[in-house]
Amino acid sequence: MEIEVLTEGSVSSPQGFAAAAVKCGLKQSGNLDLALVISERDCTAAGLFTRNQVVAAPVLVDRATLASNRTGLRAVVANAGIANACTGEPGLANARAMQVMTAEQLHCRPDQVLVLSTGVIGVQLPMDRVQAGIAAAVQAVDTNPTNGRLAAQAIMTTDTRPKQLALQVKLPGGMVTIGGMAKGAGMIHPDMATMLAVLTTDAAVAPELLDDFLRVAVEQSFNRISVDGDTSTNDTVLLLANGASGVSVADEPGVTIFGQALTYMCTALAQMIVRDGEGATKFVELIVSGAPSAAEAHLIARTVATSPLVKTAFAGSDPNWGRILAAAGRAGVPFDQNQVNLWVSTEPSGELQLVAQGTPTAYDETEAAAVLAQPAFRVRLEIGPGEGTALMWTTDLTHDYVTINADYRT
Amino acid sequence: MEIEVLTEGSVSSPQGFAAAAVKCGLKQSGNLDLALVISERDCTAAGLFTRNQVVAAPVLVDRATLASNRTGLRAVVANAGIANACTGEPGLANARAMQVMTAEQLHCRPDQVLVLSTGVIGVQLPMDRVQAGIAAAVQAVDTNPTNGRLAAQAIMTTDTRPKQLALQVKLPGGMVTIGGMAKGAGMIHPDMATMLAVLTTDAAVAPELLDDFLRVAVEQSFNRISVDGDTSTNDTVLLLANGASGVSVADEPGVTIFGQALTYMCTALAQMIVRDGEGATKFVELIVSGAPSAAEAHLIARTVATSPLVKTAFAGSDPNWGRILAAAGRAGVPFDQNQVNLWVSTEPSGELQLVAQGTPTAYDETEAAAVLAQPAFRVRLEIGPGEGTALMWTTDLTHDYVTINADYRT
Repeated sequence: MEIEVLTEGSVSSPQGFAAAAVKCGLKQSGNLDLALVISERDCTAAGLFTRNQVVAAPVLVDRATLASNRTGLRAVVANAGIANACTGEPGLANARAMQVMTAEQLHCRPDQVLVLSTGVIGVQLPMDRVQAGIAAAVQAVDTNPTNGRLAAQAIMTTDTRPKQLALQVKLPGGMVTIGGMAKGAGMIHPDMATMLAVLTTDAAVAPELLDDFLRVAVEQSFNRISVDGDTSTNDTVLLLANGASGVSVADEPGVTIFGQALTYMCTALAQMIVRDGEGATKFVELIVSGAPSAAEAHLIARTVATSPLVKTAFAGSDPNWGRILAAAGRAGVPFDQNQVNLWVSTEPSGELQLVAQGTPTAYDETEAAAVLAQPAFRVRLEIGPGEGTALMWTTDLTHDYVTINADYRT
Repeated sequence: MEIEVLTEGSVSSPQGFAAAAVKCGLKQSGNLDLALVISERDCTAAGLFTRNQVVAAPVLVDRATLASNRTGLRAVVANAGIANACTGEPGLANARAMQVMTAEQLHCRPDQVLVLSTGVIGVQLPMDRVQAGIAAAVQAVDTNPTNGRLAAQAIMTTDTRPKQLALQVKLPGGMVTIGGMAKGAGMIHPDMATMLAVLTTDAAVAPELLDDFLRVAVEQSFNRISVDGDTSTNDTVLLLANGASGVSVADEPGVTIFGQALTYMCTALAQMIVRDGEGATKFVELIVSGAPSAAEAHLIARTVATSPLVKTAFAGSDPNWGRILAAAGRAGVPFDQNQVNLWVSTEPSGELQLVAQGTPTAYDETEAAAVLAQPAFRVRLEIGPGEGTALMWTTDLTHDYVTINADYRT
């Protein structure tokens, strides 16, 4: 096997990376709230950002930074508790100041530092605390595995658990490692919804190729998850490659293997986000097939995956296929309702067909409800004879989602 | 004043209309579940139907009926409890049978009868019960106001209260009356989401003009409400005009006045639906202005009005303007976040500005929360200097919504 999961792996598992996490008083809870990931040597880097029209200051800073420097990155500094979004010119100045402060402490240039923020919108960062936090983080930075894992804790907001993984990947030229951490539990939806991820690797990868790897992996992972249909102002995925392994990814079959490993990494992190979705008790894999095109299948999958009526039915373990069909029917994709088939399944049982040619089968209601009572199940919707297929991961909509979001100020 | 609300008015208030409501065993509750509205003389008629791809049998029957007969309608028969959707050929035969049974009892042709169903999807109607119900309803039919009001009760599903109104409208040629009833509490969204409405008038109106009146009125009313973003398989609005008043609507200013009255009627019914939204505790009027076009303003309004994060913030009386801006930003309409302004208000207080040029004002948090704690309030979002404006009515997303929909099988 070319890809293996590293026990107790983290964002700092790849060679030449180190991390730190500190408390600097940005979270009301008093928990860890500032994370630093550094590389001992220059990295190539790629980034993907929210497509929301309302964009947080750190996103503006990172976009500009990567536009001018994709080969000499040294650090990512991330805070949680305050999103630095809707903060105007002072907010932009603060994001730039985070970059400068980190660069000064690390004795590098500001354009070698990327910045992430997540948390409450519309509040200015207390820069004295941030400055103290950055200084403490630079002091604490270390290659030990614990530090990497604490960094994943520091970036949490409504997350109930940290999300991280490291993979060892066997390439023709030798072994490389990919590490990653992510956060996100609400405002989760395709187009990089309210989530942050930092991915690291000790492979040497040219920036253009790194960009391709990241786009493909994100399309198959973070862009296929939905908790509540809301996207955020801060969504960012960063990928840094420092080449410390001495193994270069440039030719086949290395390129294919590395790409698969990165997609595996992103898929695993994306699924962790869905499983930790705000108030979620169910992990639902939704497959839509038979559409005229993949894009149309995706449109239907998104509509079903975000339907409050479908998601509350999941919460109630109710095999309410009528709501699934009704949601599919309003996606804007024409189809013949008399050609629709629907199945539900859960490992290790076989598929149970609920709808055949648009009408209910004589399925057993208790059996169907038992499938939907599982913590993870699959819903497969075939809408016609087309070739278009899409996959999404989503959750149920529960009382706890309402409790979390009626009370928590994001 | 040309338009006056009739005390205790109902769908049978216009001259020449009568109604009945009976129990025939379609609702588990044993409540009234079959309604009949008849006219003593032929009506012109117009209908608007769901745009969902998955369409219930009665919608197919009514579309076909109105395609062949728009001048000789005599009755609307409606059942609640079973939607007759996703029921295939047998369901279509049953919807046609409802039409035939009603016509036989009323001694008219089947194509003079329109059919409505609402309730559980995927279950066949027990036609023996429906037949008995139709026979009993025809016996019970009467012009007394009580019968009209009971008809509005009979079409309820998760509704907590009946929705109806009658208006007296003073036209140059004399007085006409418009009556109406509606149902709907969940699956409520533009494009006629899970709602039924039957509108009646004793004005004489040519079918083409009636069609125009209905389209304009629905666009300003039922297409501007959202409870949960889900649209249904059965949504239908029917308008019947029997001319029994002897007053014809064909020229100005009568056309304008009648159109205003019909829009008033539909707006009132639409607002009743939102106020009775599943689990709703807040009635929210959302105004989006400053967009490049009305269509783009509407797109933003829809996205904000259906955002779970926005709606849970409303539930928590949380003036969480960040979520409103973030939802607006993902609507797909480009705008400059530095030109965004946001106000909240409630009668009779003035507007409170929360956001100016994309950043929070120094508003008083307690004051803002007090506005959102009201049972009805307005949110006004200005996204730029454009001329495009849109208005929507929506609700909060509460625990009760989850309870109703995790347990109730629609």
